[in-house]
Amino acid sequence: MELAHVLASLGAGDPAPVPRQQRLYALLKAAILDGTLTPGQALPASRQLAADYGIARNTVLHAYQLLQAEGFVAADRGGTRVATLPLAAALPPGAALRHGEPPGLSRRAGRLQLRRGEAILPFAPGVGDLNAFPWAAWARHLQRAWGEVSARRLAYAPAGGEPALRAALAGYLRARRGVVCEPAQVFVVGGAQLAIDACARLLADEGDVAWVENPCYPAARAAMQTAGLQLLHVPVDGEGMAPEVALWQQHPPRLLYLTPSHQYPLGSVLSLERRLDFLRRIEASRGWIVEDDYDSEFGHGRPGGLPPAIQGLRAEAPVVYVGTFSKLLYPGLRLAYMVVPRWLAGSFGDRLDSLYRSGQAVEQRALAGFLESGGLTRHQRTMAPIYRARQAVLRRELAAAFGPSASILGGAAGLHLTLLLPDGPADVEIVRQAAELGVTARPLSEYRAGGGGPPQNGLVLGYGMADEKRIPELVARLATARQQALDALHHAPPQ
Amino acid sequence: MELAHVLASLGAGDPAPVPRQQRLYALLKAAILDGTLTPGQALPASRQLAADYGIARNTVLHAYQLLQAEGFVAADRGGTRVATLPLAAALPPGAALRHGEPPGLSRRAGRLQLRRGEAILPFAPGVGDLNAFPWAAWARHLQRAWGEVSARRLAYAPAGGEPALRAALAGYLRARRGVVCEPAQVFVVGGAQLAIDACARLLADEGDVAWVENPCYPAARAAMQTAGLQLLHVPVDGEGMAPEVALWQQHPPRLLYLTPSHQYPLGSVLSLERRLDFLRRIEASRGWIVEDDYDSEFGHGRPGGLPPAIQGLRAEAPVVYVGTFSKLLYPGLRLAYMVVPRWLAGSFGDRLDSLYRSGQAVEQRALAGFLESGGLTRHQRTMAPIYRARQAVLRRELAAAFGPSASILGGAAGLHLTLLLPDGPADVEIVRQAAELGVTARPLSEYRAGGGGPPQNGLVLGYGMADEKRIPELVARLATARQQALDALHHAPPQ
Repeated sequence: MELAHVLASLGAGDPAPVPRQQRLYALLKAAILDGTLTPGQALPASRQLAADYGIARNTVLHAYQLLQAEGFVAADRGGTRVATLPLAAALPPGAALRHGEPPGLSRRAGRLQLRRGEAILPFAPGVGDLNAFPWAAWARHLQRAWGEVSARRLAYAPAGGEPALRAALAGYLRARRGVVCEPAQVFVVGGAQLAIDACARLLADEGDVAWVENPCYPAARAAMQTAGLQLLHVPVDGEGMAPEVALWQQHPPRLLYLTPSHQYPLGSVLSLERRLDFLRRIEASRGWIVEDDYDSEFGHGRPGGLPPAIQGLRAEAPVVYVGTFSKLLYPGLRLAYMVVPRWLAGSFGDRLDSLYRSGQAVEQRALAGFLESGGLTRHQRTMAPIYRARQAVLRRELAAAFGPSASILGGAAGLHLTLLLPDGPADVEIVRQAAELGVTARPLSEYRAGGGGPPQNGLVLGYGMADEKRIPELVARLATARQQALDALHHAPPQ
Repeated sequence: MELAHVLASLGAGDPAPVPRQQRLYALLKAAILDGTLTPGQALPASRQLAADYGIARNTVLHAYQLLQAEGFVAADRGGTRVATLPLAAALPPGAALRHGEPPGLSRRAGRLQLRRGEAILPFAPGVGDLNAFPWAAWARHLQRAWGEVSARRLAYAPAGGEPALRAALAGYLRARRGVVCEPAQVFVVGGAQLAIDACARLLADEGDVAWVENPCYPAARAAMQTAGLQLLHVPVDGEGMAPEVALWQQHPPRLLYLTPSHQYPLGSVLSLERRLDFLRRIEASRGWIVEDDYDSEFGHGRPGGLPPAIQGLRAEAPVVYVGTFSKLLYPGLRLAYMVVPRWLAGSFGDRLDSLYRSGQAVEQRALAGFLESGGLTRHQRTMAPIYRARQAVLRRELAAAFGPSASILGGAAGLHLTLLLPDGPADVEIVRQAAELGVTARPLSEYRAGGGGPPQNGLVLGYGMADEKRIPELVARLATARQQALDALHHAPPQ
């Protein structure tokens, strides 16, 4: 093979801003890897190559030295030769791999449901009003935490999280949610999904049965499904998850995943009777309740706010309580927490630590300060009536725009309402049309899984970022989107 | 049941700083939950209870209202009665659960290896010199990123990470590691372990075979094991992972996990021949190479630094490249990245996004700025000779203190050396003694798994945080620890 061909671009006016010696190295390496230069082929002496191409001899020597150090060429008395390497055959142009199809994703990855839509436009669910967040106060706490920084606080955080945050959280959860816990039972992790993932892997084995609500928070399903659990999709009614009694005998759950404060997405509040019944039965089936206290930050309407957590209803019950700061602070912070029974705290913590290294100690300390100063609960108190007012306007506008055929679910807590649209176009089509009009909504059908039960069609509408004054116009756009989807349906060519 | 008994502590001088109405509510709730007050039992009229205990009637009314809202009591014309609830039998004192043993951890959690030791003392492996980090420069970039903050940047980060960081990373990896990639192939995740976890779940299914090095980075093993993969522990020699050729036929890997730049913990550099051989064979077995480019930040000794990444040796090969900023910046930052082939980037990114929500957009933008300004590579250039000098001193001191029976492995890159101590006391015992002397070392035996091959005894010693001047004294403590472990061995009572 002509070396001249390989090195043709070497003298060609240096189109790329790459030093000459790196280019020589790169050209030779590429030619060896693709078989253009063959094993055993002699490279010219450095002096000669330098003279031929008008480059410094040191440039050539450096390139040869690198290639030799990396094993691409071998040098002996006879000069420098291309090494004999276990090269694959050259790729035909356009082919990615020699052996048929590339390996691709796993089957379980293929089964994952994809997330659609923009997290920040109205009415994306699950986001609080980021514009109303008390940045000045939060920045002060962050700044103070950075001021106290030390090497220790920048290394991995202590397993389970910064002690100050665990203590502050234990106090907060006891007072606000009736969670019965000591700081040692509280574990800080990088997001609610990681908390659910940790439950799926540390509390259940491949093939174990997990009950999930149907419809369900897709990210929770994704975490459990990819951990190899066998999901059982249990219907939800107005009082939360509603399993047939026989199911407990037929497929006792190892994990029972619940969003009791405000079922996501249907908005039911799990009744006390079911809470107690689940507690009783989970012990008999030797399983775990994973209590995702989603949307519990803001209770609306009930005199005492939301019912207290399942975790606190029975001492030492097999319940893992999960919560997050995504809605009270901001989702990008990526801090969530889980509370495990006292008798499991030690062994659970050890295992959690081998699953995920903990970090963000500075942010954790800032958050502890923010909690202890009362800043977070003040923000919570400020926002509750604002969200309540937004919900009222959204409810009124939806009823006006979608008429009596549409019913509205949820609203006892949290930041979203669910609009059922049983007749007419598919929700995904409405959502697609709405996106073109600059409004995000999540299709209810995306939350459903498995067979059984009637399909549910509707929109999950977050009002956290929706200013009251804008809601009428935003709802009008949703109604337009629905009309457009309806028109498209009627004008679709017959199949 | 006497209500008087339940409410005995109500008037008792308010020992806890809890409002009277909350205490009344809590006492009644607890008594209902534990069966002290029985279903259907009438509670006294609010007026009467208020008079009996000398509390305001509104206090009683509020407590009753809460209990009713939560379903603990029911009110009708006949007054307020305890609701009929599916209660479990009362717990006998001291018993956690009614049905025998509590459910506990999963089997796979039980198999996890626990991490020991402190991440910040010398010689903890895997930590750079946090005291030498250019805090002022990093703080400026962080501050600038906070200055540009917006609601969008505080919501979930765009799937895959902030575009500015993905672009900066692609450039950095092309230039420094020969990784062939566009920004769209780069995905930012919350730590290297999450990157490995994503590979295990998105590229492999339960029961699929994963080859791991033996000894191996325990956190990688933990991620793959808890994802349900079947691990095959392949021995490592001086040129990296050394599988028998027959293994490729017998148990072709779906995932092949490698630390090629500086095998963790033995410090071998994977030879070019094996890199190419693995690339050729992985295509035939339709598997994936997970290239954890651990320790590639600092190459020592070779003229051109470390050999370039496997990823860049063959266009579009089935390789996922994984790296982290834990050693260049600080572990607590919890930012790592993965690079996937172009043909997988789209579908992989969609799935990654349903597995973990992305965040920390502010930190990601700060990091992009730090990379683009050249600050990070400047820090890298500053630290390389410092670490090299520390390694030289550590090597010299270890040789002097442990004599010819001990051999030292590794050092071509990274921040640790491995001291083999085949004779004498068990490494875990030396590590235990060393911890009492204030020195962290990781026992080599902790990295081994599975049967086969001789046991390996030794110490994995990180020198990132070890000041040159202190190393002689620290090594002396290690030698003392070994002597103490030896003494304990000889003075152990006969079995």
